[in-house]
Amino acid sequence: MLGFGNEAISTLALQYFSVVDPTGLPQNTRSIREASTVVAGEPEGPTVKTDIPGPKSKQLIDELSTIQQSGAVQLFADYERSLGNYLVDVDGNVLLDVYTQISSMPLGYNHPELLQLLNNPTNVKTIVNRPALGVFPGSDWPNKLKNVLLQVAPPGLNQVTTMMCGSCSNENAYKNIFIWYQRNQRGVTNEFSKEEIDSCMLNQSPGSPPLSIMSFHGRRLVFPVQERNKPVAGVVVEPIQSEGGDNEASPYFFQELQKITKKNGAALLIDEVQTGGGPTGKMWCHEHFNLDEAPDVVTFSKKMQLGGYFHKPEFKPQQPYRVFNTWMGDPAKLVLLQGVLDVVRRDSLLDLVQTTGKKLMQGLRNFEQEFPHLLHAARGRGTFLAVSCPSTKLRDDLVARLKKKVSVKLYHLGVAHRERCADRGCGELSIRLRPALIFTPKHADIFLDRFQQVLKETK
Amino acid sequence: MLGFGNEAISTLALQYFSVVDPTGLPQNTRSIREASTVVAGEPEGPTVKTDIPGPKSKQLIDELSTIQQSGAVQLFADYERSLGNYLVDVDGNVLLDVYTQISSMPLGYNHPELLQLLNNPTNVKTIVNRPALGVFPGSDWPNKLKNVLLQVAPPGLNQVTTMMCGSCSNENAYKNIFIWYQRNQRGVTNEFSKEEIDSCMLNQSPGSPPLSIMSFHGRRLVFPVQERNKPVAGVVVEPIQSEGGDNEASPYFFQELQKITKKNGAALLIDEVQTGGGPTGKMWCHEHFNLDEAPDVVTFSKKMQLGGYFHKPEFKPQQPYRVFNTWMGDPAKLVLLQGVLDVVRRDSLLDLVQTTGKKLMQGLRNFEQEFPHLLHAARGRGTFLAVSCPSTKLRDDLVARLKKKVSVKLYHLGVAHRERCADRGCGELSIRLRPALIFTPKHADIFLDRFQQVLKETK
Repeated sequence: MLGFGNEAISTLALQYFSVVDPTGLPQNTRSIREASTVVAGEPEGPTVKTDIPGPKSKQLIDELSTIQQSGAVQLFADYERSLGNYLVDVDGNVLLDVYTQISSMPLGYNHPELLQLLNNPTNVKTIVNRPALGVFPGSDWPNKLKNVLLQVAPPGLNQVTTMMCGSCSNENAYKNIFIWYQRNQRGVTNEFSKEEIDSCMLNQSPGSPPLSIMSFHGRRLVFPVQERNKPVAGVVVEPIQSEGGDNEASPYFFQELQKITKKNGAALLIDEVQTGGGPTGKMWCHEHFNLDEAPDVVTFSKKMQLGGYFHKPEFKPQQPYRVFNTWMGDPAKLVLLQGVLDVVRRDSLLDLVQTTGKKLMQGLRNFEQEFPHLLHAARGRGTFLAVSCPSTKLRDDLVARLKKKVSVKLYHLGVAHRERCADRGCGELSIRLRPALIFTPKHADIFLDRFQQVLKETK
Repeated sequence: MLGFGNEAISTLALQYFSVVDPTGLPQNTRSIREASTVVAGEPEGPTVKTDIPGPKSKQLIDELSTIQQSGAVQLFADYERSLGNYLVDVDGNVLLDVYTQISSMPLGYNHPELLQLLNNPTNVKTIVNRPALGVFPGSDWPNKLKNVLLQVAPPGLNQVTTMMCGSCSNENAYKNIFIWYQRNQRGVTNEFSKEEIDSCMLNQSPGSPPLSIMSFHGRRLVFPVQERNKPVAGVVVEPIQSEGGDNEASPYFFQELQKITKKNGAALLIDEVQTGGGPTGKMWCHEHFNLDEAPDVVTFSKKMQLGGYFHKPEFKPQQPYRVFNTWMGDPAKLVLLQGVLDVVRRDSLLDLVQTTGKKLMQGLRNFEQEFPHLLHAARGRGTFLAVSCPSTKLRDDLVARLKKKVSVKLYHLGVAHRERCADRGCGELSIRLRPALIFTPKHADIFLDRFQQVLKETK
């Protein structure tokens, strides 16, 4: 570890090791890219010194438990000392992070380009003066939406609504779809009827009509019976059903699903909350599917720093205040997203994700060959990968030992994930990877090496 | 206007004019407090030079309309030049802000104490390293919760769950109440039955039982018929029903409501999203009600910078992950809240709210006497005030002319608020005030003076 584990780290975190070639002479561009991507001062590898949670984490868990339910807490992190792909906990354990705050840290920890953003007085004021965006946006808001968010909009979608998190993005997207669906039902008349206006305040039809969103989403694998009597206004589907266990479908599935929704006058909403922002090697996972046209609505959050959804123009409500809340997003998060996207472009991180992903996937496939009784069904795109075990017990055992070798984050995906579900419908057999976009082949080597050790010990 | 309207403002915003008395000689403490509360460089009064929205705002509205529904936008603000109680728009209009981003800016714009927070490298890292708080909180998180949030918890509540915004705070509080209610139904057995575990994934009973929250909340004035067959797990009520038109009830109403909920085994949730954080002259509006004991759950957001809810210990879920999402709040917002609360204490802003509120209320009552055909039912607590007009048409007319005299914010509360509702159930007759906590009697004088001019012209 280079200078890690002492106070110098806070200084190191502010530096960035960038290799450029001022001579213009040919070089190995791949190694340049990797070198410039690694945050200066990042540890050489993970080191776990205590149980996880360690004694200091345990003490803080006890403390936190006096004021809130904290049974899900895996450890307390030292975010001042965490750096790049490495999370440091309060007990001094250094963990290679392949889960990155539930897939929400695109550039890892303390990325110097992000820290620098807060030296800019305009950005500081953006953080302090949080507007009610729906009514009093700042002068730079249209430009920010255009130059930050719409620059990475899924091809074919040119409208965007900002929100706070994944849940409210999906919920307001559903509402938006219902508005669109009812307008289609109403036909040429766009006016609300008196009956609609009167009944909506009572949660009754026709103002609050019974509509449903058919969901292949979250941990849900079945369309609930009581929803089946309601008209389907839209279908929500994840490109890779994440919390359900990294369940995948073919591009053909999505192409046909789009045809079916169109034929039935329903909207197709692709939920890219977990898959969006680059981890599959494209900005949006559904770009891998070669759809006939853009999905109607695409939701985002996590790696995008703030929630929201892109949509087609016909999904824009015709009246104001129909999709509305106090804040309607947060310009402070768009400041961070702008910084993230600048680094993604500068360092060609989507290419890196593809390169690292190939290496990780090849490694997982080799393990399937070498340990067929332990692992199967390696799957995924980019570094958004998963592999399954034949039983939950074995999976939990592997993951528990991996946490001492690699990173506590796998632990979360293992045991805790099962506790979370408390049912049998979600990913009980899978080990899943969600590294940052700055996860290089070197980091993949470390992970695969540690994983192999664990698998060999299991043999 | 002292140096306002030119580039010097960005420097001025960083200064803070604080009167102290190094001699220890007796002084008029009231004037000291007011003087120290005023952000240095704040304009002497509002000046409106163009229509609102002005030509530059209109241009930006057109631009924004190409990418999202922007019919609710009242103007585009220049947040670099806005200061204290004054919002400056892109057309150079200087507006006395009595609405403060839908009641969410406790210290107005560019408060120097908040700008200074971002000079602290630890705070900068907090903003950049956003954790998944439910699983990997930072080492300082328990202390922050204790020393910032719990320091201002409603008396008798010692548990807190953080969220993002008002909506998700209320929704997760409902979920928390359902969990508590079902545990009470289950009695001594805390284990989930197999039937519950199997059926919850299908949104069916007994895992997803039909429960309701009885609501005196938002714009709802009626308990929907279809909800009446479901057991009432809890009652949600605002201390002042805000979006419904600043409807108030007596302390006796709340005392009796608490008795009824207790008798029926239902939870009492007081929604302080809009009333919390000081605008009624106490940190929480329900502290005015002299309840027998604390409410079971109190939600917050807006002036508190982040969402969440305080609750009694028996409402803590016994299993992890039952109330959970990726971020579970945002430590970056707690940094801002800490800065806000430090200033609230230092400058005794709750006292100031009471003083300014009395002046505002007296002014409104004088207007009721002087203009009984124009205004009635002045009501509220602290500076959280409202007054009604005999007709919506008259209200809209007053508000439209007030926007040229005082602040566009009243305009929003007028016409746009009606458009938003698109029904007849919400506050169609009211003019409402939601100034910042730094609104002094001097600002009240300006507002009342402009309001009187408008009323006289209406006579």
